[in-house]
Amino acid sequence: MSEKIRVVLHPRHPRGVDDALRAVDGIELVEPEDEDGVAASLETGPVLVTFRWADRFLTESLRWVQSISAGVDQYPLSRLEARGVRLTSARGVHGPAAAEHAFALLLSLTRAVGVSMRDAEHRRWRPRMGVELGGSTMGILGLGSIGEEIASRAVAWGMTVIGTKANPDTYTGVASEVFGPEGTVEVFRRSDAVVSVLPDTPETQGVVNEAAFTAMEGGWFVNVGRGSAVDEDALVEAIDQGHVLGAGLDVFSTEPLPDDSPLWANPRVVITPHTAGLTPEYGPRLADLFRRNLAAFTGSGSWENVAV
Amino acid sequence: MSEKIRVVLHPRHPRGVDDALRAVDGIELVEPEDEDGVAASLETGPVLVTFRWADRFLTESLRWVQSISAGVDQYPLSRLEARGVRLTSARGVHGPAAAEHAFALLLSLTRAVGVSMRDAEHRRWRPRMGVELGGSTMGILGLGSIGEEIASRAVAWGMTVIGTKANPDTYTGVASEVFGPEGTVEVFRRSDAVVSVLPDTPETQGVVNEAAFTAMEGGWFVNVGRGSAVDEDALVEAIDQGHVLGAGLDVFSTEPLPDDSPLWANPRVVITPHTAGLTPEYGPRLADLFRRNLAAFTGSGSWENVAV
Repeated sequence: MSEKIRVVLHPRHPRGVDDALRAVDGIELVEPEDEDGVAASLETGPVLVTFRWADRFLTESLRWVQSISAGVDQYPLSRLEARGVRLTSARGVHGPAAAEHAFALLLSLTRAVGVSMRDAEHRRWRPRMGVELGGSTMGILGLGSIGEEIASRAVAWGMTVIGTKANPDTYTGVASEVFGPEGTVEVFRRSDAVVSVLPDTPETQGVVNEAAFTAMEGGWFVNVGRGSAVDEDALVEAIDQGHVLGAGLDVFSTEPLPDDSPLWANPRVVITPHTAGLTPEYGPRLADLFRRNLAAFTGSGSWENVAV
Repeated sequence: MSEKIRVVLHPRHPRGVDDALRAVDGIELVEPEDEDGVAASLETGPVLVTFRWADRFLTESLRWVQSISAGVDQYPLSRLEARGVRLTSARGVHGPAAAEHAFALLLSLTRAVGVSMRDAEHRRWRPRMGVELGGSTMGILGLGSIGEEIASRAVAWGMTVIGTKANPDTYTGVASEVFGPEGTVEVFRRSDAVVSVLPDTPETQGVVNEAAFTAMEGGWFVNVGRGSAVDEDALVEAIDQGHVLGAGLDVFSTEPLPDDSPLWANPRVVITPHTAGLTPEYGPRLADLFRRNLAAFTGSGSWENVAV
């Protein structure tokens, strides 16, 4: 019987990932309580499952990192490559959950479900006219694997999709026009609804700003990416000015959303507490990907989602 | 110059229908304040636009009724036919708006948007795991034109659709299995989510009852049809028992929803105040249909949506 492979799981992970990985054959799952424990465990463990990176994780033993995130901007790609450490992303694992969540937020705005639920808490019956998505234009900031899941659902419902992507030349999906990040304002100008899937990277800090919101001239904004990409003060102001008709936000610049945030009580804002990627399907889907890559790691299969 | 055709508009109509009809050439639009006025105006007017029927509307002058509703069960079909009065439905006019609203309610349940908005009113940050619609089964009660708009959007998102229809033999849409009304409980048994589009007719009173909800054994219920089809007490009980995980309701047995209804405060219930069909596109879409049928009425086109 072959020895079990030591796999270290970072303590910060979506609910259900631990249970799903515990069911994987042929591994010894190590679950440290903090990042010190992760670093220590990696002195003897060759595999790390994580969505956070710290330089001390790069031990002599480390051979493979399975990321829990779709993007891999948080990792030191060239250093991993120089050290011969494989890095695989979770591309495709979050997409379906996040895409449905983006539509849940958008439809809560366009059909006034959010404000009707604020009303319901006070037993108020106040009909408000909704608007239809069919025939309108959706802009997607960050047309990666998650963005494309949103795009395909939008096109299936009769919407036109445009968007941005770090490298627009590599785009092969259903959107009819794709800009580089410098096209962000143009995407807002042309769209009836904009969905941000942008990750938290140095390049995305505050790129959804006053200029973008002002260009919208009446439209809906949804964020299922990361809060750091959005200037929240500019968003509140744009809603007050009517440039943005409403915002559906799953992520915020500070989480949990602080008690004194003006977003809590704004009738044009729909809030969910960072749950876009959180479904029971998440853990098993990640574990399935992990199993296939584990087979590659042990020499009996081919790698998926290789970043390095 | 030919004389204008006198068209009587019933005072109860969705917002925007009056403005859209006022823009139709070749008619004199009469807008009585009550049903007495409608009946009086029809003594000299040959055309009625309405979604309600009263027998005194059947005057000697009446020649054509353009219904504002997709269904025509409220009309005395055989008597209209005997008197040579044409009846055309609004089939296709409500579909896109109602279909998107059904998904707004369903996704508000599956992604916990409704309860998160109750939380937001109290500045509470409480993440809850959502579930994915993709790969699940949707049951649709009433696979007519509106039901089919819902079905096609569900199939496009990777769901399987089953449902009921008064005459299942005539069904030609995307659902994989269609039962008669006697299959209602079976549809609940097989579905992860059930959407009712049932109209208010003698046959549909309370057909969504305890037996149906109990058969569900954990699933979501959405109503964008009419409240009379649902036993609300049984629904509340089924939610308490866990047979129904949550309900998204746009229609109720009494509207506006009474102040003492237990639905208002139930955290598993999402409420919108009968707005599923209400979008700015509604009036123009109905007026376009009316224009085409007006041409037929004056002998220069063919009728659409003929019921009688």
